[in-house]
Amino acid sequence: MDYTFTPIGVVRTPFREKFGIPRQPGLVSEARGQIVMPFSDRMQRAVQGLEEFSHLWIVFVFHANESKDPEGWKPSIRPPRLGGKSKMGVLASRSPHRPNPIGMSVVRLESLRIDKKSIVIEVSGVDLLDETPVLDLKPYLAYADSIPDAQSGWASEPIEKKEVRYTLEAESRLRAIESEAAGYTKLVEGVLALDPRPAFQKRKGNSGDYGMMIQDWDVRYRFDDDTSITVTAFLPAKSLKNAKKASPHA
Amino acid sequence: MDYTFTPIGVVRTPFREKFGIPRQPGLVSEARGQIVMPFSDRMQRAVQGLEEFSHLWIVFVFHANESKDPEGWKPSIRPPRLGGKSKMGVLASRSPHRPNPIGMSVVRLESLRIDKKSIVIEVSGVDLLDETPVLDLKPYLAYADSIPDAQSGWASEPIEKKEVRYTLEAESRLRAIESEAAGYTKLVEGVLALDPRPAFQKRKGNSGDYGMMIQDWDVRYRFDDDTSITVTAFLPAKSLKNAKKASPHA
Repeated sequence: MDYTFTPIGVVRTPFREKFGIPRQPGLVSEARGQIVMPFSDRMQRAVQGLEEFSHLWIVFVFHANESKDPEGWKPSIRPPRLGGKSKMGVLASRSPHRPNPIGMSVVRLESLRIDKKSIVIEVSGVDLLDETPVLDLKPYLAYADSIPDAQSGWASEPIEKKEVRYTLEAESRLRAIESEAAGYTKLVEGVLALDPRPAFQKRKGNSGDYGMMIQDWDVRYRFDDDTSITVTAFLPAKSLKNAKKASPHA
Repeated sequence: MDYTFTPIGVVRTPFREKFGIPRQPGLVSEARGQIVMPFSDRMQRAVQGLEEFSHLWIVFVFHANESKDPEGWKPSIRPPRLGGKSKMGVLASRSPHRPNPIGMSVVRLESLRIDKKSIVIEVSGVDLLDETPVLDLKPYLAYADSIPDAQSGWASEPIEKKEVRYTLEAESRLRAIESEAAGYTKLVEGVLALDPRPAFQKRKGNSGDYGMMIQDWDVRYRFDDDTSITVTAFLPAKSLKNAKKASPHA
């Protein structure tokens, strides 16, 4: 028996393409998002009390999955944090390429506002693609959801962060962008520090130019060495064609 | 746009009716369950590595929902832990009566075994109805999922536990049951200590006889006072008609 669900809203985020999105929520606390639901009297009642919680779960659809597999999902994936060297069962990972492409992310609840047209929940720490369809929202219950000493198998090593530097030109451009989009610098540094490249690129070493869309800009960067990245340019949107793209979460 | 999902398996649990099930996972660690998936080569590869994790998320369907609401969900619910006195938005709760009846529960992973017919994952701390359809399994990642100091609004008070006693007759019957179903005593005490009654019954006070199905027995009990319960009988299955039933999780 199948089950059919209708999204209750979408999440708006600074991540306009699936490449390079932080691979878990909370890793980039600067990443803001808005859960937007059409206004209705019922939905207004349904969110009553949600603002009493500091965190909430977004249950969503990995809607940008394009699998080459005839069944639409991959049994094995190569987790980026293992450098693309090892295979792992997809159900032993948080990869989007699942039998049922449902995701869940815990985010910080910043504010809730309701007007005649929509219900907007401002959140931070998002790891979702812009326009992600939302199936459900749930309050985070620390007594049930938080298991600090759970053992996390292959994902238990802390994630190494890269140092992020800039060329002089990029730095001056960034200052101009920051003046119109406050917080952009921290967002870029948070995302790039996590090394957003997909597993297959990591396996090929650190040479070449990379790029990813963050908010309205195409951020170009290169690796100085294993621990440091230099941003070389912020280009207007839709110019990513000639750079390698960083990847989806896995 | 709608999304349709096909369950990958079911969860077998000791809870044969939705009334009285612990309202969050982990509250009754004695509650064992089995996630059962049909064997396939792809699914065998998909679970590879899962046993490295101590806990996993079950993403499931609240399949036993029967809503009187024409739209199939309730905007407001009365959380049992508030004694049925206050209304709360359904999205500010973990109630099953949601716009999209998707649930998520974190359980302890006990073992994984694979034979020619099925893949069986033994788990504990379940709060799910027997035969619950499973949409997805995900490893619990403490670094992303565990937020010990998250504020839990109306659900932040610790859950009070009742003392569980027995009549002499019930105690002797329980000893016999335990000898064929090891662990049954702890399961019963774990479930009843949480006061499984629904909100509307709590509002009416503690008088009368209550009953709930736990594994293959209909457990009858009454309230001595606000802090203590006495179990009066363990009856064969399907005799619940004359007792008030305890309720689903909310």
